[in-house]
Amino acid sequence: MAKQRVTTILVGGTVLTMNTALDRFADGTVAILNDSIVAIGPSPDILASYEADEVIDCRDQIIMPGLVNTHTHMPMTLLRAMADDLRLDVWLMGYMMPTEREFVSPEFCRLGTQLSCAEMIRGGTTLFADMYYYEADVAAATAEAGLRGVCGQSVLKFPAPDAASYDESLAYTRRFIEEWRDHPLIVPSVAPHAPYTCTDEILQKCTELALEYDVPLQIHILETRQEAEDQWEEFEKKVVERVADLGVFRAKTIAAHCVHVDSDEIRLLQKHGVAVAHNPTSNLKLASGIAPIKEMLERGVRVSVGTDGAASNNDLDMFEEMRLAAFLAKGATFDPTALPARDALLMATRWGAEALHLGHITGSLEPGKRADLIVLDRDPLHNAPQFERDPNSVYSQVVYASHASDVQHMMVNGRWLMRDRALLTLDEDAIRAAADDYARRIDSFLIAREGNVLNKLVAIGGLQQEESFEIQVKAVVEDASIIQRLLEHPAVQVVKHNHYRQYDTYFLFSDEQQGRVRYREDDFINEQGQPVSVRTRLTYTIPTKAREFDEAVLLSHSRFIAPADRPLRFYREYFQAQQECEIHKDRLRWHVLYKGVLFYANLDRVMMPEAEERYIEIKSRTWSQHDAEYKAALTTEILTQVLGIGPEARVRTEYVELCLNAR
Amino acid sequence: MAKQRVTTILVGGTVLTMNTALDRFADGTVAILNDSIVAIGPSPDILASYEADEVIDCRDQIIMPGLVNTHTHMPMTLLRAMADDLRLDVWLMGYMMPTEREFVSPEFCRLGTQLSCAEMIRGGTTLFADMYYYEADVAAATAEAGLRGVCGQSVLKFPAPDAASYDESLAYTRRFIEEWRDHPLIVPSVAPHAPYTCTDEILQKCTELALEYDVPLQIHILETRQEAEDQWEEFEKKVVERVADLGVFRAKTIAAHCVHVDSDEIRLLQKHGVAVAHNPTSNLKLASGIAPIKEMLERGVRVSVGTDGAASNNDLDMFEEMRLAAFLAKGATFDPTALPARDALLMATRWGAEALHLGHITGSLEPGKRADLIVLDRDPLHNAPQFERDPNSVYSQVVYASHASDVQHMMVNGRWLMRDRALLTLDEDAIRAAADDYARRIDSFLIAREGNVLNKLVAIGGLQQEESFEIQVKAVVEDASIIQRLLEHPAVQVVKHNHYRQYDTYFLFSDEQQGRVRYREDDFINEQGQPVSVRTRLTYTIPTKAREFDEAVLLSHSRFIAPADRPLRFYREYFQAQQECEIHKDRLRWHVLYKGVLFYANLDRVMMPEAEERYIEIKSRTWSQHDAEYKAALTTEILTQVLGIGPEARVRTEYVELCLNAR
Repeated sequence: MAKQRVTTILVGGTVLTMNTALDRFADGTVAILNDSIVAIGPSPDILASYEADEVIDCRDQIIMPGLVNTHTHMPMTLLRAMADDLRLDVWLMGYMMPTEREFVSPEFCRLGTQLSCAEMIRGGTTLFADMYYYEADVAAATAEAGLRGVCGQSVLKFPAPDAASYDESLAYTRRFIEEWRDHPLIVPSVAPHAPYTCTDEILQKCTELALEYDVPLQIHILETRQEAEDQWEEFEKKVVERVADLGVFRAKTIAAHCVHVDSDEIRLLQKHGVAVAHNPTSNLKLASGIAPIKEMLERGVRVSVGTDGAASNNDLDMFEEMRLAAFLAKGATFDPTALPARDALLMATRWGAEALHLGHITGSLEPGKRADLIVLDRDPLHNAPQFERDPNSVYSQVVYASHASDVQHMMVNGRWLMRDRALLTLDEDAIRAAADDYARRIDSFLIAREGNVLNKLVAIGGLQQEESFEIQVKAVVEDASIIQRLLEHPAVQVVKHNHYRQYDTYFLFSDEQQGRVRYREDDFINEQGQPVSVRTRLTYTIPTKAREFDEAVLLSHSRFIAPADRPLRFYREYFQAQQECEIHKDRLRWHVLYKGVLFYANLDRVMMPEAEERYIEIKSRTWSQHDAEYKAALTTEILTQVLGIGPEARVRTEYVELCLNAR
Repeated sequence: MAKQRVTTILVGGTVLTMNTALDRFADGTVAILNDSIVAIGPSPDILASYEADEVIDCRDQIIMPGLVNTHTHMPMTLLRAMADDLRLDVWLMGYMMPTEREFVSPEFCRLGTQLSCAEMIRGGTTLFADMYYYEADVAAATAEAGLRGVCGQSVLKFPAPDAASYDESLAYTRRFIEEWRDHPLIVPSVAPHAPYTCTDEILQKCTELALEYDVPLQIHILETRQEAEDQWEEFEKKVVERVADLGVFRAKTIAAHCVHVDSDEIRLLQKHGVAVAHNPTSNLKLASGIAPIKEMLERGVRVSVGTDGAASNNDLDMFEEMRLAAFLAKGATFDPTALPARDALLMATRWGAEALHLGHITGSLEPGKRADLIVLDRDPLHNAPQFERDPNSVYSQVVYASHASDVQHMMVNGRWLMRDRALLTLDEDAIRAAADDYARRIDSFLIAREGNVLNKLVAIGGLQQEESFEIQVKAVVEDASIIQRLLEHPAVQVVKHNHYRQYDTYFLFSDEQQGRVRYREDDFINEQGQPVSVRTRLTYTIPTKAREFDEAVLLSHSRFIAPADRPLRFYREYFQAQQECEIHKDRLRWHVLYKGVLFYANLDRVMMPEAEERYIEIKSRTWSQHDAEYKAALTTEILTQVLGIGPEARVRTEYVELCLNAR
């Protein structure tokens, strides 16, 4: 009988299929036709039925599925070792975010993806899940490199490098999905960044998009203890519960981190079939903690492994990652039988592919699945000698002592991407040179802002980004009682009222791009006119970009807030501002719902510098441009129709300018 | 001026000296004369003054001190991946110890050391501290390979592969030290295994030996929580306190693990200048826990890094080890600034050398120190791009993303051991073939005992090794009141007395080498003759080796004890013994001090099989042969002089034989 002709035959290796039966062949052969595996089994059986022009001798080697990295940020590899060993806020807000704001572009994302693909190919990763910006460029670079990727476009409530608002991100994501959804290597995906960086509305809209196109949804969940605490305070719900209640888990969800989930939340993840991407290195390096994966596995949650971005790892080495996953599961539970090598390897192969909803085409070596595989040296010195009695020894070898450098060949979708450690689809030297060029420019950028105010601010710790957009309008009022028109209006409902005196000290810098620091003391006043409590805060605003809508103004703030737990003197000496000014005001403040939308109404009297006028301010926060337009219209409506204030009373200056003008 | 001629010049690399000033040279050169560094600095300066025939271009490479592995068991690399993911007792007593008993020999130790040296050379380790058996062979193989080693001969209270008793080990250690103490590469050392495996006397004698020759003393301390609990129960002292009180820390002590030290113990370690060898991988993999190294470092303890043996790691990769040390210090304390990369690298270089009391000759690159160094590729893909703004970035590169495979060249004592990744002093293929041959033999050995009783016993958990030697004498007595002669003797002090009925069920196997399992139930009897409490235990004894001293018998037991928390029926079905027999006896038992030495005196009546005779037994435990002889003499003295029993009454059979003979 004639043999069937196939494209490639890998012969004579130790084959680890990682299929559900965990079939292994000591002298095994894999036959590949075009993009898929057609046969796998003992060498004599396969060689009797198949022939090919390309026959690769795999003696003393292991043939196994490629590794699956279920959580990373490909382009961030360009920021590897840029800034390490820092407190999370300093690292993120002092280094990562400013650098990303400055440098992230389609070109940056393409190059970063190429660098990451090259490293992944060398380290035996055939499939990854990414979350970043300009995801169409990540996808394009991945497809060119020949890797398989689930590419998640990030959506969040802050302005992102690729979008001024979340509406833009969503529109981009929709176009991206439509463009890439039929690609043989790429699965487009939507990635609402995290519960704490997304409003309910963003989470819901992302879910709808994922359901509409049946694409996976990626999200960071409970990476830090802080997130659990803050979200509990804000929503009085556990994070996983909130996300579940919003319906997010109706989408094919991959939740990264899940370090601080409790048993109830683990049960919820299991119930909704949410897959978890465990990132042990990043969680240790950023000191986030240790995810309870032993409990997750025991409760039936689908757990997989990711490296996270190289900026917090600092590499994309899945051998190290699965090894650490296995070690940490044991060490953290005092149970040496937890996550044995075999299961760690499953987590990094088939379970990973299943987590990404690609278990039907990859993650194990089975006839009919795509040929996504690696050939690994079985017998380097660091893995000698070879025991054979225990069938688990070979998994121990792969997980506990193999190195990325042991990968000899790797193939995705039937195409060789590396042979004998030579990359076939990427130009290593060119990538390295271009990456070094970025490093030089980023070095210069960071050196130039070493004396930067935000830097100094983060260096003293504890920043927290607040809103990014504020709609506001301000007007002079002659009679303070005009506020009653608002409070008594039938469409208005008063939620909260307080009275305080606000003492602001502004630190201003000759370079306006440095932004401003404000030390703010609020003395709360009771009904008897006595101060009853004091709160001090530090606010940092980058130069405000204003945009007008009708009468209202949209301020793009990027404001950071920190508790000011040191005296004013400290900050004065610390920041050494070129200019300083003080504003004191007496403020009556109401939180009101107007047509169901939350507004803040302030009735202000400036005490210093002394001023005759009383001011009324109407403010609202927003996260999307569409919403900004709607709220701007409502703001104007309140000013003109409810309060009856004409355009002549409108004031366009900020309070700080009163002080500067007074000089 | 003529240039000074030296042996080797390494030119144009990024030089990390790791000296106390942490001097670094972006374009640096190192000049080496014979075994030592003579100059180090910016390339133009050094090249102006030195010339050599051998000039190595190190552009795009890092020249740095070799890594220092302060705790390992070199020969155990031959047991790598033999048995993993098991409970500690099953792993240790079911696999490691039996295999070691069978295979550990001078040849095994030489080969294992060669394999470990080859792996260490490939991974950039220039100095290690070992603890094992046949340490003269470890030293010889190390010296041949050209590595630097602190070689610690193990001493413990159990029979070891290289000694039947600790006296033998001590004598061996003395000879070993005398033979090797002047070698340029080897530092001989004494290694009392651990506080729980050493008597006070062993710890003290080892200390005296270390002080006599001024050699380092290595010891395992508090690797497991169990050790802390058991030792507290036994000594009513914390482990570190006991060891300190015994004077051990007067020697130059390196304490491995220290996972479960508390703050008081950390202060004691600091006060006594004890160096700690931290083994993060092994501690996680065996689920021992996470050592509090952040606190140790804050309190000024000298902390270094070790891989432990490859059987619990599973490799000797110091890059992985220092990386995990850094990650774990952060993750376990929720402090991302803990153990920054720079300090992790210091721990793995200079601090490691200082921990081994070799800081004056190695651990950093400084003129006058030995040339123990590695040349590392600076720019593999997994470490691109290269940032230069932050002086710590290069440490991040080395610690967080470098791989063992990035080491290009390595030199110890001025001699190249690897150039361009080719080993120069060892034959890799021959070592691998010999190691695989051992693996085949060990596989066969383990397969043959798959049906083994001890194996089955450990598989059901919770074994604990008890004594190894027992001195005993037994005699028939006609009148039970003879015991009063003992109890009332002026040289005797009664410590404790109890009365119980002992119901023994023996499981016997056709292969006597399998040993015996005994299910033992003790019913304690109060003064009214009523049973008041019951204890059940399982005892496993390997075939007893007996030796006679005068009238007494020295039994070499290797006895294991486990609580029997399942019914007799379970064990009967589980062990499927070829033969079973029962002995019931009524026993009056006294713990007495005779001339200050503890003995157990039993007055026994065998109830089943029914027997007329009453028996008296005098027993004592011992750990050393010298002590055995002394106790044997005392035992005979009690029998003949105190009790007045003549040799004719002497019984040489064990109780179990009564039952067998009765059949």
